[in-house]
Amino acid sequence: MSKVFFDVGMSLDGFIAGLNGGPKNPLGDGGLKIHDWMFKQKAFLQHLQLDGGETDNQDNDIIENIFNRIGANIMGKRMFEEGETNWPENSPFHCPVFVLTKEKREPWVKPGGTTFYFTNEDIHSVLQKAKKEAGNKDVRISGGADVIRQYFKARLVDEFTLHLASLFLGKGTTLFDESLNDKTNVKLEKVIPSNDVVHLFYKVLKN
Amino acid sequence: MSKVFFDVGMSLDGFIAGLNGGPKNPLGDGGLKIHDWMFKQKAFLQHLQLDGGETDNQDNDIIENIFNRIGANIMGKRMFEEGETNWPENSPFHCPVFVLTKEKREPWVKPGGTTFYFTNEDIHSVLQKAKKEAGNKDVRISGGADVIRQYFKARLVDEFTLHLASLFLGKGTTLFDESLNDKTNVKLEKVIPSNDVVHLFYKVLKN
Repeated sequence: MSKVFFDVGMSLDGFIAGLNGGPKNPLGDGGLKIHDWMFKQKAFLQHLQLDGGETDNQDNDIIENIFNRIGANIMGKRMFEEGETNWPENSPFHCPVFVLTKEKREPWVKPGGTTFYFTNEDIHSVLQKAKKEAGNKDVRISGGADVIRQYFKARLVDEFTLHLASLFLGKGTTLFDESLNDKTNVKLEKVIPSNDVVHLFYKVLKN
Repeated sequence: MSKVFFDVGMSLDGFIAGLNGGPKNPLGDGGLKIHDWMFKQKAFLQHLQLDGGETDNQDNDIIENIFNRIGANIMGKRMFEEGETNWPENSPFHCPVFVLTKEKREPWVKPGGTTFYFTNEDIHSVLQKAKKEAGNKDVRISGGADVIRQYFKARLVDEFTLHLASLFLGKGTTLFDESLNDKTNVKLEKVIPSNDVVHLFYKVLKN
């Protein structure tokens, strides 16, 4: 059955982005470093229409697996705006992307299979639409932190992956907040260590 | 050569203790749960003079290894006061413990090899004394968070271990703060996954 998941890179001190993020400073001050492990991999570069990259390691396989499972994305307006100016013309999603925004805008069809749908509906309705588009594949709650938290709090997330990078940011955007308390039960399902990062796969227990 | 290290249990949202901690509420609201994996292990229970516990797993070995490497501890006054009322008469350290406090107090010799030394000296001087006592063994910066941060910020820590528990606390005491920025370089040295926790071993790079 189709799953709903999120998948984020995180610093050791819990940040998924640095301060002052925006279209001209994607992922904020120092935030790109969280993803250094990913930028080296062929599977990632391919999705940005770039050549090169490493292939003979588990990091590359992990990225490939993530891309392959995604049938639709859901993201917030700020993430879209930050990405819009930085993604290549051939957007790296290759599937429908639902953008949560109050702005009214027609769907934006990009080369390479990505269509951005702009919606003002509640998160449940958007997820229903995303699931329908995803078919047998999974729905990724892409971000930012606030959108992931909304879906996580509403108990709509089935699984998540943290790519815990071996670095500190000091300041930035945290993913987890007070809304996640001891009533949020998760189970560690898989751990894949790598050089600069450890990949942690969790399942959310529905209780 | 003798190493300086810290070793803490941490929730997925970065807390090493819950709110409202104190002698009557050790590790704060929900904080003990972070260490559930540890409380089950024979190596831990033995140090509290308790029977039982599991032995046939890596969690037990990890605890045994940690206890075996410690030649001296350094801890803050609050940690000492919280523990003092909860540790057994035969204190679970079995080596010298330096307590950072403004209170003047004679050394307190406990059965089982633990002696608490109360000191108002700066952290460098205390570390020198602890290293001398530890001999070939290592010095553990036991906690709380503030004392660990002081030593970490002063670049006096060589290694650290995070036992990342698969749970959220929502609120509590965080270990890492703004003082740890992108100038703090660490390297992931070893990862040991377990059922409820993943053990992450880091080395601090001196640069």
